[in-house]
This record gives sequence, structure tokens and C-alpha cells, in this order.
Amino acid sequence: MLAVLAPAQATAAAATVPSPTEIVTAAPAGDWADIAASDLLVLDLAPDRDGKPRRVVIQLMPPPFSQGWVDNIRKLAAAHWWDGLSVNRVQDNYVVQWGDANGDDKAKARMLPPGLADVPQSQYSTGGDVTGGLPAELRFAAMLIPRPDVQRFSTFTRGWPVSGEGMPDSAEYWPIHCYGMVGVGRNLPPDTGTGAELYTVIGHAPRHLDRNIALVGRVVAGIEHLSSLPRGTGPLGFYEKAEERVPIRAVRLASDLPEGEQPRLQYLSTESASFARYADARANRRDPFFIVPAGGADICNIPVPIRKKP
Amino acid sequence: MLAVLAPAQATAAAATVPSPTEIVTAAPAGDWADIAASDLLVLDLAPDRDGKPRRVVIQLMPPPFSQGWVDNIRKLAAAHWWDGLSVNRVQDNYVVQWGDANGDDKAKARMLPPGLADVPQSQYSTGGDVTGGLPAELRFAAMLIPRPDVQRFSTFTRGWPVSGEGMPDSAEYWPIHCYGMVGVGRNLPPDTGTGAELYTVIGHAPRHLDRNIALVGRVVAGIEHLSSLPRGTGPLGFYEKAEERVPIRAVRLASDLPEGEQPRLQYLSTESASFARYADARANRRDPFFIVPAGGADICNIPVPIRKKP
Repeated sequence: MLAVLAPAQATAAAATVPSPTEIVTAAPAGDWADIAASDLLVLDLAPDRDGKPRRVVIQLMPPPFSQGWVDNIRKLAAAHWWDGLSVNRVQDNYVVQWGDANGDDKAKARMLPPGLADVPQSQYSTGGDVTGGLPAELRFAAMLIPRPDVQRFSTFTRGWPVSGEGMPDSAEYWPIHCYGMVGVGRNLPPDTGTGAELYTVIGHAPRHLDRNIALVGRVVAGIEHLSSLPRGTGPLGFYEKAEERVPIRAVRLASDLPEGEQPRLQYLSTESASFARYADARANRRDPFFIVPAGGADICNIPVPIRKKP
Repeated sequence: MLAVLAPAQATAAAATVPSPTEIVTAAPAGDWADIAASDLLVLDLAPDRDGKPRRVVIQLMPPPFSQGWVDNIRKLAAAHWWDGLSVNRVQDNYVVQWGDANGDDKAKARMLPPGLADVPQSQYSTGGDVTGGLPAELRFAAMLIPRPDVQRFSTFTRGWPVSGEGMPDSAEYWPIHCYGMVGVGRNLPPDTGTGAELYTVIGHAPRHLDRNIALVGRVVAGIEHLSSLPRGTGPLGFYEKAEERVPIRAVRLASDLPEGEQPRLQYLSTESASFARYADARANRRDPFFIVPAGGADICNIPVPIRKKP
């Protein structure tokens, strides 16, 4: 009995029906875009119980989205604010959160660096056509309860999944929560958070958080160091004991690391022909393992391919 | 700075706008349905490094879905087939898989018990209206790329998320992959698997697997013992070294355990008024943390509530 969920034999028929991975592998160099070291945040956790290093790399979100919080995060990293803080919350099928475990206690909370902006809720979305006229086949209906009164859709722009509402050229757009996206913890509204408290999604996309919390980036390497952490047993998945917390050694912009240590990563341009083929193949699997193509995909099931720069 | 993603203070305004959790907590006893011990599969992994027990409880899927494989699984459990086998694959944002690590090697593979059915692909779905006339507000459009030629939707029936295609009373229905759903590993089609090789979803719902693999149940307790396992570093997330595998002590139907050890669980009836309110609240968060209700939810973001029987 061959007991695998996806077959090794798929390669045999690949010449006729390429899988999503094969489309990505075959994409020409020009379809890949470099991620600047100044847009990568490198989060080093303390080594695990076996002494293995745990490095997580986060790509910060580009304009026009969330730049108030992204600027704060650059300042926090420059101030070494997270060094010695910890991962404090791991809630199954939801989020991993890190920051100051004493943040709720003014007497013990670590002082934030000066100059952080108080970003308004209006920055949760942005007006105008940010998609640069993407082809219609890359627009996805965003909601699973259809609302005839609202024209809402999801799409990709410059490497990121977004939703929009309205007509494409006059729509409001916002980044959306998918697996691995990084957002800003906050208090009750109108608070929007500074960026000092961050989380990443480790479960099914929590669509209800979109436009309710700032999204500032996504994990592009090492998510397994967060997603496989023991789940917290307190309310909301917070660790109940201080010794359960996972210490953060340092968080730095990659451009502040020695050149040899800087991750060199690329994403598959969402404006490329390869990405359009990849998205179609994700939505309609035709490689030999599959019988019935789905005829559609949730936008979070079309993760933007990331690779090490060859 | 209060640094939480969801506020403790939400309780204050609960009298006016209950959260999904508050709706579930307030549901009357009659809205909860018992899960029979004979429909629960108890998977005991070896204790973790600290000696803590790791018990996972799986609810088997009821008729009319997937009963050929469910019957096989009952026989496999009765034969103690999984005892001493292992979790062999943990792929981030996808699946955890367990069974016979030597399954691909006929010389080493463990012999299957006699009497397992060879279940046809036609059992991946079922005809007729299985929903018993659910109200329209509990029907969700299932696909994110709308196809005007196909009337496809998702809904709940007797506690389970399903999709359908066609008109409700003449549709084809099938169970769908959500976080925690349990399915049957298989080889290339027309193989459909026996049920000896199982997996559970630990990431964003892989919609492309629906109708392509048998779904036979869902994890109703202890999923954290699977979802927080170290990710495998081999192809498809298989563990590369035998010592990385997680040993299975025993798998039993709960009804075959001593009565005091049998889990007593209930699910919130998806036909109840409480569930309708809960689903609406999940799709339109109005508790004080939220600013903009989503106006919709992916069906996998409306997990069916499970509780210990009070």
C-alpha cells in the first residue's frame, strides 16, 4: 500500500499537466522580484531545547498599506525594543503573539522608544485603484455569504493579497488575513496599536479581523518556529506561566545585519504570467492525484510563492 | 498599554451585543446533541518529552457520508491496527498524517486486517437533499471564484459542514475540508484508500481536496497534540528520520474503553436557533473589539462548537 496524500508519481504526467509547484519552478527569472533587505524583519528566538536556532523572517508591507505602523516597527527594531521580550500567546488555529508580557502592567511595562506615531483607523484601508488594472481573472469574489448590495472582491497587488469594495477604479482596498500574515495587537477601538505587539496567523484565515486590525507584513521564512510552539492554556491561548514563554533574542531589520547574514529572498510577481497560471492551477488542480477540480480557490489558498534568490 | 488582540473588557457590553462564545455559552441544553461513544475514536500518542499524556479524540462522520471508509476504520480500531505505528508527516499549513511508516514497502508493511471494503469514488459525495430543509440564511456560497454556470453552496447538516452543487432538493452534497477534519490518505486514483492511513488538516482549509479524498471525521479534542508537532523536513513534510516519528500507543473506539475513560462530548446542533445566531455572529462581529463587521464568513470560520457534556 502506498500511503501518501499527494503522490510522488505526479512527476510522470507533469509534461502535460503541470502542478502549481511545477509552474512556479519553471517561472523565468524575470517573473521573480527581489525583497529588499530593508523590508525584512529578522526575529531570532532563543534556540530550542535541542539547541537549534530559530529564525523567523518577516516581509514588511509596502505602500500604500499600513505605512504608519510599518514606520513604527522600523523604529522599534532600530531601538532593539523586542530584544529580551517573548512570545506570550499561542492560540490553536488562530494566532501566535509576541511583545511585552508585562504590557498590561504600567509599573513593569518596558518603555516604548520615542517618536512612534498614533496611527488612525483610516489607515486600515486605502482608496483608489491599487491593483494597476489586474486582469479580471485575478479578481476573486471575497465573501462566502454573497451580498448583492456590495461589490466585494479579492485580488493580488504587488505580491500581496487584498480585498476591495466598490468598482475596481474607485474601490476601497485593504490587506487581508491569510496564514502567516503579521498584524498589530491593540486595545479596544479607537486604539490601533503601535506595532510593538505583533501576531501572526497560524490557522484558517480569520476574515473577521480584516479592516479591524492593522496588517503589516507576512512571515516569509521560519513560520514553523512559531506555528509548532506549544499552545497556551490560559484564556486566548496566553501562556499561564512565565517559564512557558519563548524568549526573543533579537529583532532587526535585515539591512542592519552583517551583509553575509542578510536573507536574500524573492517573491513571484503577482503581475506575472507565471503567477496567473499558478493561481489557475491552484484553483483547478489537474495533476494526476486529482479527480474533480474545485473550480475555485479561496485567495488564502493561493499563497504567493517565496524563494531564496538563486 | 493593554496588549491583547481580543479584549477581556468585551464582557462589559455583552448584555447588548453577545459575542459568538457568549451565544454558545447561553445555548439551552436542548440545543446540544450527545456524541455517542461508538462514534468517537480515541488516539493515544506516546507521552511528550515531559511525560505528559497526549490524547486526541476524533468524531466519526455519520451517514450518509463516507460510511464505507468509516466502517473500515471501526474494523481497524477493533483489530488494534494502529497500535505501535506512528505520526509520520507534519506539513505546515496543511496536514498531519499517521499510519504505517513502512506502508510503501511490501516486505515491511504491517498486514491489514481482513474484511476491509474497497470503497468506490462515488462515495466521495451523495445525492438528494441531506440538509433537511435548512433555512436559506444558513446556505453559504462556497466558492471564491464565482461560476455563474454552477450553483454551488456550503451549509451545515447534522453538525457537519458540507458543500452542495445543484438545487438544494436535487443537489449532490459532500463533506468539506476545514481545520481539524480527518481524511483518508490514498494512492493515485482510482485508489480511494482503506482508512488505515489518516490525516487531519492543520492549516487553511484545502478546498482542492474536497471530493478528491474521503473525509471520515474531525478532531473534537486534543488537536494541539497534532498541530504543535515539529514540522517534517522531508518532501511533503514527512519526517526524514525514524526517531522523529511520534509513536501511537493505541487507537480505540471510545465504546471499547472502560466506561470511566470514555469522553462524553456534545456538539451544538446545527439545526438549532442558537447555532443560527452563532453563525451570524461569527460572520458579523459586533462585540466591542470590532469596528467593521465582515458581512460574511467562510464556512470553515464557523467551527461547530463542541463541549464536554455537563
